[in-house]
Amino acid sequence: MKPIGALPPEFAAQTDALVIAGRAADDWAMHAGDTPLFVYDMAVVAARISRFRAAMPAIDLHYAIKANPHADLLTTIAPLVDGLDVASSGELAKALAVKPAASISFAGPGKRDDELVAAISAGATLNVESEGEAARTFAIGDRLSLTPRMAVRVNPDIELRGSGMRMGGRASPFGVDAVRAAALVKAVVAAGADWRGFHIYAGSQALDAGAIVETQAATIALAARLADESGVAPPLVNLGGGFGVPYFAGDVALDVERVGGALAEALASRPAILAETRFAIELGRWLVAEAGVYLTRVIDVKESQGETFVVVDGGLNHQLAASGNFGTVVRRNYPIAVAARMGQEAADTVSVVGPLCTPLDRLGDKIALPPVEVGDLIAIFMAGAYGASASPTAFLGHPPAAEIVTAI
Amino acid sequence: MKPIGALPPEFAAQTDALVIAGRAADDWAMHAGDTPLFVYDMAVVAARISRFRAAMPAIDLHYAIKANPHADLLTTIAPLVDGLDVASSGELAKALAVKPAASISFAGPGKRDDELVAAISAGATLNVESEGEAARTFAIGDRLSLTPRMAVRVNPDIELRGSGMRMGGRASPFGVDAVRAAALVKAVVAAGADWRGFHIYAGSQALDAGAIVETQAATIALAARLADESGVAPPLVNLGGGFGVPYFAGDVALDVERVGGALAEALASRPAILAETRFAIELGRWLVAEAGVYLTRVIDVKESQGETFVVVDGGLNHQLAASGNFGTVVRRNYPIAVAARMGQEAADTVSVVGPLCTPLDRLGDKIALPPVEVGDLIAIFMAGAYGASASPTAFLGHPPAAEIVTAI
Repeated sequence: MKPIGALPPEFAAQTDALVIAGRAADDWAMHAGDTPLFVYDMAVVAARISRFRAAMPAIDLHYAIKANPHADLLTTIAPLVDGLDVASSGELAKALAVKPAASISFAGPGKRDDELVAAISAGATLNVESEGEAARTFAIGDRLSLTPRMAVRVNPDIELRGSGMRMGGRASPFGVDAVRAAALVKAVVAAGADWRGFHIYAGSQALDAGAIVETQAATIALAARLADESGVAPPLVNLGGGFGVPYFAGDVALDVERVGGALAEALASRPAILAETRFAIELGRWLVAEAGVYLTRVIDVKESQGETFVVVDGGLNHQLAASGNFGTVVRRNYPIAVAARMGQEAADTVSVVGPLCTPLDRLGDKIALPPVEVGDLIAIFMAGAYGASASPTAFLGHPPAAEIVTAI
Repeated sequence: MKPIGALPPEFAAQTDALVIAGRAADDWAMHAGDTPLFVYDMAVVAARISRFRAAMPAIDLHYAIKANPHADLLTTIAPLVDGLDVASSGELAKALAVKPAASISFAGPGKRDDELVAAISAGATLNVESEGEAARTFAIGDRLSLTPRMAVRVNPDIELRGSGMRMGGRASPFGVDAVRAAALVKAVVAAGADWRGFHIYAGSQALDAGAIVETQAATIALAARLADESGVAPPLVNLGGGFGVPYFAGDVALDVERVGGALAEALASRPAILAETRFAIELGRWLVAEAGVYLTRVIDVKESQGETFVVVDGGLNHQLAASGNFGTVVRRNYPIAVAARMGQEAADTVSVVGPLCTPLDRLGDKIALPPVEVGDLIAIFMAGAYGASASPTAFLGHPPAAEIVTAI
């Protein structure tokens, strides 16, 4: 038997039939018309935002829409955050539908000319990632007779310890190396662009508050050094994000209040050149992952060589991350439950597999579940981020999953 | 520096500018209107089919459309093969558009009732994967007053040695264990279904001819044993596929002629109960992988901490497998080239990365390439199977890649 991750706090204490946003899982499936489906409980998202606001009242909160770009979710989240971060012109268009361009910033190591045109025309901030991209931005601004809004993305000489994905402290396609950043800032200012500041992202999916505190302090120091070197203060410093969520057994949730306390202290004693600077934290996963539940129905329960397989109608075509095939070295089990029998004692060790003709399509590997029957709904938690939009939907030709965004 | 895989034979000897199906890569990009794009050279597919026919003249050839379900590709391939294998009702609909139902079989560990209805109504063969699925099939056939065409998928007590993905010789959600297969055949025959035979798939992506020969012999023996036990001969035995292609440095192409010779010998001495049985081999990847080239344009060339990054406009959102994030434990480089400078000497060690804001989006890791400039086309080979349809297209909101199927 292998362990599963803990259910998010909003669901962990439930017994009997699973309720999401006040409604039974079965009702949601009926409402969607079919399984599988994702339900995003926006009250959970709002609760995370409130927690962030209480912990870090002076910090701007940006939502990285790559985590979940569903249009209804964006509509709900937009008024609750200070900015939206996008990574393509497709995401830019979605963001512009719900937020003014001045609150939107665009990062990405390979922005095409047509993407630069879209961002400059709309008035969104470009987080410039190389000298070449800066030159293309100036040229397009000139051609359009528009002043580009530009920040500089810095590849920091800092690494976020214990992060699921390191994005700093090493050679990287993201941003310019810290040693070249001040020169790029000077070029941006000299070109007459609207100087917006720095974007410095050192890693993601970190659960260790101490590591985040340390990285944020180093990021503030780096921003101050670059401001000194370039001779201009940054209006905004995007400190990146990196707030992790506990997917797996043994993971301990991030102590956000500790991060907020330390950040307030670090900012209270910040160098004078950053006195007028605003600071933002960019979060995707931490805001939405725990709000999402993926519901899939049992098609078959079968035995093979002494093992029991629960075959469901959803799989890695909708929830690649839960199958352990996206950026994971060792496959571990997401939190998972039989929707009709929450909190009931485990009866059997089973593996939950999807309908795809590949051994990769496994959503739960040798897990202990209460009794399961054909027709039952299986709930896979932590499905609000990097789920539906980050999975190979067309693989094997099954229909896409429905997505429901609850009202708050 | 890390090695790359060898280019497929049709492209390996080229010098100067890359030509695909008689046309320059640049022309294809112009024809598509934009990059990135996939070009599928159907002459390469036809050549693989001819090679199979010459090596195994007495064996039926089925195409597993999951490898590449593009509609134009299916239209071209359908008349060249004896059957199409599908894995969902979505794939079934595509197959029915180009091939009669009697040549179509449907495998998949979790077929929904509506999928069984679609297959039975059309007259496609269902590869039944469990006793429960058989019972549902009988019930739906009764309800529709139609006789289902049914084969039994067997989880063989055989393992395909050295295969990229083992699908036999262990507990599995695919098929029924060999020890229960004869009973299921009897039930199928007793229910009055149209008995079609066995589907026995032991693994995939094997390059070792000896392992495939051994597995095929064992599969024939297993089919004979099951026929004896159940008292009925199988009209067809689908021997599975498992023919691998050489993606990576050091891989040696499969000796298909050796497989064909050994299979002919094995069939010449097959047990009498299989005398009237036809045999099929089901191939996906081996038929189409080498025919596909993914073309993506260089947006930026940048340095970071002494490393050079070539940033292109295509990435894991179109070609997840090439990024090493789909069913691979150790990331290795696919064959890759600068389209304008085929066969030229390497100038630099570079990493080729896509435009996505994730370190996972890497198409070539520390590879030796001729000089590369912004605007160049980069060609990634072996892109015909499990590429466009097996990647998270929506991830980060970039447009899908164009797909071009050449005429033959």
